[in-house]
Amino acid sequence: MIRTLAVVGTGLIGTSIGLAMSRRGTTVHLVDRDTSAARTAAALGAGVTTDPTGPVDLAVIAVPPRAVADVLAAQHARGLARSYTDVASVKALPARQVGTVLADPSCYVGGHPMAGREQSGPLAARADLFDGRPWVLTPSSQTSQSALNHALELVALCGAVPLVMDSEMHDQAVALTSHAPHMVASLMAARLQHGPPEALRLVGQGLRDATRIAGGDPQLWADILRSNAAPVARVLRELANDLTALLTALEDVAGNEGSQDPVAGALVDLLERGAEGLHVVRPARVQRSAAGPTVRVTLGGTPGELVRLLDTVTEHGVRTEDVTTCVDPVQDLMTAELTVPHVIAGQLRRRLSEQGWQVEGAAGRLARHPLPQSSHVDDLWEQEVLPSQRVASLPSVS
Amino acid sequence: MIRTLAVVGTGLIGTSIGLAMSRRGTTVHLVDRDTSAARTAAALGAGVTTDPTGPVDLAVIAVPPRAVADVLAAQHARGLARSYTDVASVKALPARQVGTVLADPSCYVGGHPMAGREQSGPLAARADLFDGRPWVLTPSSQTSQSALNHALELVALCGAVPLVMDSEMHDQAVALTSHAPHMVASLMAARLQHGPPEALRLVGQGLRDATRIAGGDPQLWADILRSNAAPVARVLRELANDLTALLTALEDVAGNEGSQDPVAGALVDLLERGAEGLHVVRPARVQRSAAGPTVRVTLGGTPGELVRLLDTVTEHGVRTEDVTTCVDPVQDLMTAELTVPHVIAGQLRRRLSEQGWQVEGAAGRLARHPLPQSSHVDDLWEQEVLPSQRVASLPSVS
Repeated sequence: MIRTLAVVGTGLIGTSIGLAMSRRGTTVHLVDRDTSAARTAAALGAGVTTDPTGPVDLAVIAVPPRAVADVLAAQHARGLARSYTDVASVKALPARQVGTVLADPSCYVGGHPMAGREQSGPLAARADLFDGRPWVLTPSSQTSQSALNHALELVALCGAVPLVMDSEMHDQAVALTSHAPHMVASLMAARLQHGPPEALRLVGQGLRDATRIAGGDPQLWADILRSNAAPVARVLRELANDLTALLTALEDVAGNEGSQDPVAGALVDLLERGAEGLHVVRPARVQRSAAGPTVRVTLGGTPGELVRLLDTVTEHGVRTEDVTTCVDPVQDLMTAELTVPHVIAGQLRRRLSEQGWQVEGAAGRLARHPLPQSSHVDDLWEQEVLPSQRVASLPSVS
Repeated sequence: MIRTLAVVGTGLIGTSIGLAMSRRGTTVHLVDRDTSAARTAAALGAGVTTDPTGPVDLAVIAVPPRAVADVLAAQHARGLARSYTDVASVKALPARQVGTVLADPSCYVGGHPMAGREQSGPLAARADLFDGRPWVLTPSSQTSQSALNHALELVALCGAVPLVMDSEMHDQAVALTSHAPHMVASLMAARLQHGPPEALRLVGQGLRDATRIAGGDPQLWADILRSNAAPVARVLRELANDLTALLTALEDVAGNEGSQDPVAGALVDLLERGAEGLHVVRPARVQRSAAGPTVRVTLGGTPGELVRLLDTVTEHGVRTEDVTTCVDPVQDLMTAELTVPHVIAGQLRRRLSEQGWQVEGAAGRLARHPLPQSSHVDDLWEQEVLPSQRVASLPSVS
C-alpha cells in the first residue's frame, strides 16, 4: 500500500499526480531542480517540499524520456524510494537505460499516463487529469511484483485505467497513434508557411483539425521522436511508399489529361484504405437504427409538407439520417420512410395518424433516395460535398 | 437582378441554394435526372420541379467537377438560362472544358461555395448553409459582366461572402488547404488498418482529429483529385521531400543510438516549420494580455493559499495562463504575478488588498516560473506533455 509518495519533476503531470494522491491522503514529497516549480506545486496542494525521513513507498520520475534513467539512478542512490515508475511517453529506451544504470532494476516499472493538457507546468495541473484515462504500465521480466503493485495502486488512486503492455509494443502503438500522426501533421503544416495569400482565406476547420497536433513544442517532440525512432520510421516508411505511388498517379494525370482510368483506381484504392483505417479506430458516431422498424408516410404534395413531417419526427427522436424519400412516378406519390427505434415505432405511428398524416400507405417504392449514412466527417466545411450519391452526374433534361 | 433561378443537380449544395433563394422570393426551378431527388428538394421548399416558361436569369450547375461542362452545354442548348455558374470544388478544368463545349463561354462564371455538411443529399440541405462562408467566383477574361453580376447576386442572397479569384489560383489554394490535407489524412489513416490491437486502446482525440477528413467518399474524392492533379502533386511532392529527409534522420537514429545531435537538428527544424505553418493559418486563439500591467501578490506560505488566490483572480477574469509564480530562496517568499487587462488592474488590486492579500510586495524575482503561452493544441490528450519548459530535465537532489 502506498502511504508515502515522491514526485520528481513537478511539471503538469508530476503536479497533477501530487494533487490526485494528496487528495487521497497520501503524503507526497515534491522534488524539482527548479525550487520555484516544486514550491508552486506545494502551494497548489500537491504535497510538501521537505525531504522524506526514510524511503517512500513509490517515487514517480516525471521527467523527459531521455532523462528518466539518470534521474532514477541518482534518486535510487540516495535511497529515495522502495519502488520507482516514470511517466515518459516512450518506454523501451528508459527500460534499457534503467537496466544499465541499476544493478537490480526490479524496483522499476515503466508507466505512461495517456493524459495531458494544452498548457504545461505546475499551474496547469489538475487532480482529475487522469480520470478514466488509460495509463500504460510496462513491467519487464525483472520487475518485482511489489513495484508493479505500487504502480497499479498509483494508477487506481489517480482514477485512471491501468493497461499492462510490453514496452516495445507500447512504443509501436504510440508510434502509430501519436508520434507518426504528429510528424504527418507537421509535414502538412510546414507547407502552409509559403502558401499563396489567397489560400489563407479558404482555410477551414478541416485543415485546422488535421494539423492541430503539429503545434507541440519542437524541442520536446524532437526528443520523443529520437527516443522512438525505429517504430516511427517503420510507420512513416510505409506511408512514404503509398505517397510515392500516389504522386506517380497524380503526376501521370497532370501530364496526360485524357486517359485517366487506371490512375483513378489507384486513387480510389488509397482513399478507401484511409476510410477503412478510420473505421478501425472510430466506429460510426452516428449509426443508423438499422434494426428498427420502418414507418412509411405518404405525402400529398402540399408545399412545405416534408419540412413539417421532418420537424414532427425529429421531435420524437428520429434523426434525419434515418429518413429516406421515394417517389412513385406512375401514381406521382412521394413516400417518406423513417427507420426508427423499436420502442418509439408504435407511438410515432399513432401520433402521426392523429395529426392527419397518411401512415403506412400503399405507395410503391421505385426510386429510393436515401440520405447516406453519416460519414465520419463532423463539421468539415471545406469537405467536398457533391450531390447525393443517388443523383447521378448528368441531370436529365426534363 | 435574379428573378428566376434554375438549380441543376439537387444534392446538398443545389438544394441548399434553392432553399436560400426561395426564402428570398426568387422562383427556383429544380432539375435532376433523379426525379426523386428533385421532388424531395421541392417538398422541402427549395423550388418547383416544373420547367421554366423561358430562360431563367441564372442556372446553377451543381454536379461533380468533371460533369460540369457537359451538363452546362446540354442546358445551354435547350436555352435554360441567360447566365450559368457551377459549385464544383475545382475551377480550372471546368473552365477549360466549358471553353471547349460552348462557342461563346461569356455566359459562364465558375463558382465554389466553401460550405458543406457531413451528410449529403437534399434532405441534409439547409437554407443557412452559406451564411458568412466564403464563396469563390472565378471569372475569366471572357466572362460577361452580366454573368458575373448574376453570380455575385446569388452569393449575396445566399448570405455568403464573395471572393473573386483566378481559377488557377483557386485550384492552387484548395490543393494546399483542402485536397492535399485530405490525401495526407488518408495516407495516415491507411496505416491504422493493420496496427496492433493494443494501439486501438491508445487512440485519442488528436489522432481522430488529424485523420477525420479522410472519411469522405473515395469515388468523389478520386474525381476531385484527378481534376486538380498538378497543384495537389506540387504540394505533396514538397511534402515527400521533407518526409524523405525525416526518414533518413529517423533511420539514422534508429541504427545508431549513440550520436544523435545532428539528427535532432533536422527533426527540430521540421517540427518548427510545422508549428510556424500553423501560426500562418491560425493566429493564437488565446493571446496573452502581454501589454497589460502586472499585479504582484506575495504569498505567506499557508497551505492552499495559491489555490484560493487563483480562484479569486479567475473570478475577476484573469486567466491562469497569465499567472506566473516566482520564489525568492533567500527570503523564502513566493510571489504570484498576474498580467491583467488595463481596465481591471486597479479594481483587482483594491479587491485583493481588501481580502487581506499582500499586493505589490517587495519580493525579489529570482526564479520566474511562467506558464507557457497556450499552444494551438486545444484538447489533445495524447499530446506529449512534459514538465514545464522552465523545469530542466534533471531535478536536483535536494
